[in-house]
Amino acid sequence: MTQVYERVALIGLGLIAGSMALAMRRAGLAGEIVGTARSPETRAIAAELGLCDRIVATNAEAVEGADLVVLCVPVGVMGAVAIEIAPHLAPGCTVSDVGSVKGAVIAAVGPHLPAGVHFVPAHPLAGTEHSGPRSGFAELFDNRWCLLVPIEGSDDAAVARLGRLWRGIGANVDVMEADHHDLVLAVTSHTPHLIAYTMVGVADDLRRVTDSEVIKYSAAGFRDFTRIAASDPTMWRDVFLTNKDATLEILGRFTEELFALQRAIRKGDGQHLFEYFTRTRAIRRSIIEAGQDTDAPDFGRNPKKI
Amino acid sequence: MTQVYERVALIGLGLIAGSMALAMRRAGLAGEIVGTARSPETRAIAAELGLCDRIVATNAEAVEGADLVVLCVPVGVMGAVAIEIAPHLAPGCTVSDVGSVKGAVIAAVGPHLPAGVHFVPAHPLAGTEHSGPRSGFAELFDNRWCLLVPIEGSDDAAVARLGRLWRGIGANVDVMEADHHDLVLAVTSHTPHLIAYTMVGVADDLRRVTDSEVIKYSAAGFRDFTRIAASDPTMWRDVFLTNKDATLEILGRFTEELFALQRAIRKGDGQHLFEYFTRTRAIRRSIIEAGQDTDAPDFGRNPKKI
Repeated sequence: MTQVYERVALIGLGLIAGSMALAMRRAGLAGEIVGTARSPETRAIAAELGLCDRIVATNAEAVEGADLVVLCVPVGVMGAVAIEIAPHLAPGCTVSDVGSVKGAVIAAVGPHLPAGVHFVPAHPLAGTEHSGPRSGFAELFDNRWCLLVPIEGSDDAAVARLGRLWRGIGANVDVMEADHHDLVLAVTSHTPHLIAYTMVGVADDLRRVTDSEVIKYSAAGFRDFTRIAASDPTMWRDVFLTNKDATLEILGRFTEELFALQRAIRKGDGQHLFEYFTRTRAIRRSIIEAGQDTDAPDFGRNPKKI
Repeated sequence: MTQVYERVALIGLGLIAGSMALAMRRAGLAGEIVGTARSPETRAIAAELGLCDRIVATNAEAVEGADLVVLCVPVGVMGAVAIEIAPHLAPGCTVSDVGSVKGAVIAAVGPHLPAGVHFVPAHPLAGTEHSGPRSGFAELFDNRWCLLVPIEGSDDAAVARLGRLWRGIGANVDVMEADHHDLVLAVTSHTPHLIAYTMVGVADDLRRVTDSEVIKYSAAGFRDFTRIAASDPTMWRDVFLTNKDATLEILGRFTEELFALQRAIRKGDGQHLFEYFTRTRAIRRSIIEAGQDTDAPDFGRNPKKI
């Protein structure tokens, strides 16, 4: 793999930035990786782990001389970071991000970037329940998707170059328009996360079902919800505040559908339930075939397999 | 491990029965395992796989001379099977089941069993998205829970003996009262499954988000729902029809909670969202500590790990 950028600046050093740094090194994609984070503790951990070639204390210092700057901070603070780095960006550099919402990030960041800087928003669809600099690993993006969401007037060459980086990191790359991205993600990610958070909260609230029972017997289905409901609270708060319309739309459809099933249960309409459950089964098969999950029994959690 | 039963009859040869047969053999828990299934095709596959020592064509034949009979059929047909086998049960034998609902099974099966037969309902909390005789594996129950739900007047020795079988199969055993079982399962399994089915159905319905996008980008959260929404439709129809009250109660709480979060999104109440998401995170940690899930990144789906 050949080098794609001479100097990459990572702003924020959590799961995504840490994994990007390790994956860029694995493939020799960057001449130098400079990282920074707001908290001194995070910077110290990143330095101890050797995630970057250089860890610096400020965003302004991090972006100096970088030909790629990646904003790896919660969606809600992207605008503030953009204001801070704008005067220090090298002419002709590319600014990208890894936020889970694209419309709000484009609105918050775009206006602050000086002319001659290429803004190419992006969103790698990968993650785990873990967060922070210690949670990164080089394989996080392997065979996952990274969506590039160019803005009006984005430079084709800058977009193509960022695509080469993400392919080198291990991801498949697609290009998508911001509104469509936010709707697709509301369906495939944001609403499922909200629902999982809700279900876990309900279980936590129930006093007749003690904590210990919910936990002991979680393998019956509940635990699959708890993984995504353990994701970073700050990141997810910002996702829902900034992808409000699409999330509320999908939630409305979800509630409508849930009420129809609830009524079928109340009325004892087994045919309705059976047909619904049969239809959803086919989708699972497609996901396995698309290589986006394993069909190992129990997700491969079981220590010994057939 | 010493033999616990001389002859075990398995009625129905799907994932649970197949896994039980393999686990009983692994530990030498049964002198002979006899199996049957309604469909000739299932019986032929079970015979080809050598799941049991003997495969027979009828339920009546299967239970003859068995000191343990386990009903491994959907909850909705347990009553009909009980009527069929009742005249053929050996005196003093134990009849058990593996149904996900206990109140309804006890009501459907109990009245048909002759005096002198011990009825000890049970529910192993284990499963995968796969069903049918080919889906079984001996390790399915390892370190999972099996709940024994004795009825009024259950013979202590019969309950203890069934407990020894399940421990030999690899499970941890708890004893629970039927109503409480059905409520706990409504929280940890039935409602989560219904919600997952609903979310997958919503995604399937959306025409602006094409099927292929939902599937391609499913790793962002959605796929965790699809696994449980791929479970056996007949089994789940029967669960919801027979654990109606508890499921509707938990669904009511879920909807209430979801509406509160939905309102927080609409009003932009970040504090409410952040606090909610922080609280649910702790539950995940407890599940890992209880040994009921792995904390490997991405459930261990990623081929290479740190």
